[in-house]
Amino acid sequence: MEITKPTLLLSKEIALRNIEKMFAKAQSLHLNFRPHFKTHQSAQIGEWFREAGVKSITVSSLTMANYFAEAGWDDITIAFSVNIPEVPEMNDLAGRINLNLLIENMEGLKALQEQITWHTGIFIKIDTGFNRTGIEASRTSVIDQLLEEIQKSPLLNFKGFLSHAGHTYHANSTHDIFSRHFDALLKMKALRNRYINEWPELMISLGDTPSCSLCDNFDGVDEIRPGNFVFYDLMQHKLGTCQLTDIAVRMVCPVISVHPSRNEVVIYGGAIHFAKDSIINTDGKPLFGRIVIDIDGTKTLLDEKNYLHALSQEHGILKIAPKDLNNFHPGQLVEIIPVHSCLTANLMKEYQTTEGETIKMLPFY
Amino acid sequence: MEITKPTLLLSKEIALRNIEKMFAKAQSLHLNFRPHFKTHQSAQIGEWFREAGVKSITVSSLTMANYFAEAGWDDITIAFSVNIPEVPEMNDLAGRINLNLLIENMEGLKALQEQITWHTGIFIKIDTGFNRTGIEASRTSVIDQLLEEIQKSPLLNFKGFLSHAGHTYHANSTHDIFSRHFDALLKMKALRNRYINEWPELMISLGDTPSCSLCDNFDGVDEIRPGNFVFYDLMQHKLGTCQLTDIAVRMVCPVISVHPSRNEVVIYGGAIHFAKDSIINTDGKPLFGRIVIDIDGTKTLLDEKNYLHALSQEHGILKIAPKDLNNFHPGQLVEIIPVHSCLTANLMKEYQTTEGETIKMLPFY
Repeated sequence: MEITKPTLLLSKEIALRNIEKMFAKAQSLHLNFRPHFKTHQSAQIGEWFREAGVKSITVSSLTMANYFAEAGWDDITIAFSVNIPEVPEMNDLAGRINLNLLIENMEGLKALQEQITWHTGIFIKIDTGFNRTGIEASRTSVIDQLLEEIQKSPLLNFKGFLSHAGHTYHANSTHDIFSRHFDALLKMKALRNRYINEWPELMISLGDTPSCSLCDNFDGVDEIRPGNFVFYDLMQHKLGTCQLTDIAVRMVCPVISVHPSRNEVVIYGGAIHFAKDSIINTDGKPLFGRIVIDIDGTKTLLDEKNYLHALSQEHGILKIAPKDLNNFHPGQLVEIIPVHSCLTANLMKEYQTTEGETIKMLPFY
Repeated sequence: MEITKPTLLLSKEIALRNIEKMFAKAQSLHLNFRPHFKTHQSAQIGEWFREAGVKSITVSSLTMANYFAEAGWDDITIAFSVNIPEVPEMNDLAGRINLNLLIENMEGLKALQEQITWHTGIFIKIDTGFNRTGIEASRTSVIDQLLEEIQKSPLLNFKGFLSHAGHTYHANSTHDIFSRHFDALLKMKALRNRYINEWPELMISLGDTPSCSLCDNFDGVDEIRPGNFVFYDLMQHKLGTCQLTDIAVRMVCPVISVHPSRNEVVIYGGAIHFAKDSIINTDGKPLFGRIVIDIDGTKTLLDEKNYLHALSQEHGILKIAPKDLNNFHPGQLVEIIPVHSCLTANLMKEYQTTEGETIKMLPFY
């Protein structure tokens, strides 16, 4: 296929390797593997997981759950605390598949008690330090109240405690990821120990891409739910959780113009293609992507003096070292390794694989 | 329609008023009005412009041009310097409508000379200080070379000079917008004066939403191309180019949980709904949106102590003043005024009007 405009290129080979590697790790640690599908949002890529042996998945919205249920997945956790206005539609889905929902307050639980008419798994969402949402692990009185109430509803099956230790994404070092993961682990183990007698089948579900990529201690954990690892990206690379060669996606963008007076190259590819997450480059400035170009027939990753340094709606600005500037000309295609593959994929809605396949995603959410 | 998940609400009444006001201003200043359709990206909203009397439009990509041509627009400028790999497809479109393209270098012009087989309007893209792309207004030797070359191609009709003074968006004050606009105006007038004898029909096309909203001096300008004004947003409000009551779009988001211990409310509505542009709030922190809630049956805009202060993929975190916290509960719908309506609309791909209509957008780009 000839590429004429911003296109999300996916190496199926690398993605398959990432899937196999993470699945093998989960198996070796005797953990249920419930990968998060919000990164790729694609039924076709879902099949790659299924072929690897995956049976249970995580999504972040009811819309996504419906989409993957339609694609044949029958064991889905919506890892997003219950959105009360959608409970009737969640109930419809619970009638068709094994659905797990999250609660973190009495209002959400009451909405389920009143409107759920099918067996539904319930996890209590725990905040292990990310401070985004969930119940702080130490607030066992709140947990006790919820559990007491859950017991009144025979259709609501308490499954256990779930946490997303998303603060591993803000770690300052690899060591910091280990320490944040270990802290989350201790908190979840304390909950397990406190409630296991009354709920002998309770599960602990934990595990984001940074911790699942780096850590081997999942003591007391039953299930992991990493998502980003299928593609990885520059943010993960900066965290030390992957090699550049593990990153499965690149944006292909045409060069529009070259501005030698300010060492800049303008590409067709902007905020509506990449999204606006950035990391800090070695020069202290925001970096939105790294650049791969063809030099003498070889795909070459340029060093960090060359990078995507600004985005407006459709334009991207590359900062280019003077010595590399003559490698760029209008009409040429360059490849950009994105900072946050989840948001980039979400915008692009379609992949071209390096193997020549066009892959569709969930069109809306 | 019952709203159960993040939904982009559009007041048709306000949008129509914004269109009429800007069109009336263009007419009173004897300027051709060629609004930029990249903000709304919707054929249905395009009809509101057409009903107001608009005949010519601006878009930012060939994909968008094809979409609006399909919807019956036959006078379109792609205000994005020519993307060489797409020239064959541009030529197809030029065979069906009056199409204007932008060039800023010899490579782009040569690609057009070689592949364009239909009459096509050509603007030279001028950089009047935004420093994103285009030819600096002072580099007349480059312009001379391009014009000399254009003359060799009878199908390429030189139309004039076009600039986007996007640095008005980075203005520090209303006064600063006036001064940046005036500077751009002087540069474009100098070009007009230099080339008008040889090209008596040349046009000057200028005018972004900040300058078109605030300034009355368009001396020497023939055409304006504002886009954002149809919806406006908090960024424009901060620039002083609109009132809050001129903002036509709001995101409606369900509340997921309330965290009194840190004065936060979590909503279903994140980076995949809002995009990640922010402005600086009065407390010095990034603000991603302002909050409107129903208090005693009245829609009430909360002050800036209450705001959308963080976004992850699907979650948004509202900072709420302690005294206002009891106005929030899980399951409730809140309205958020977005910072950058163009990027929010681009993500949502669909509007619900306050008048009850569902409006579709260009699905992909």
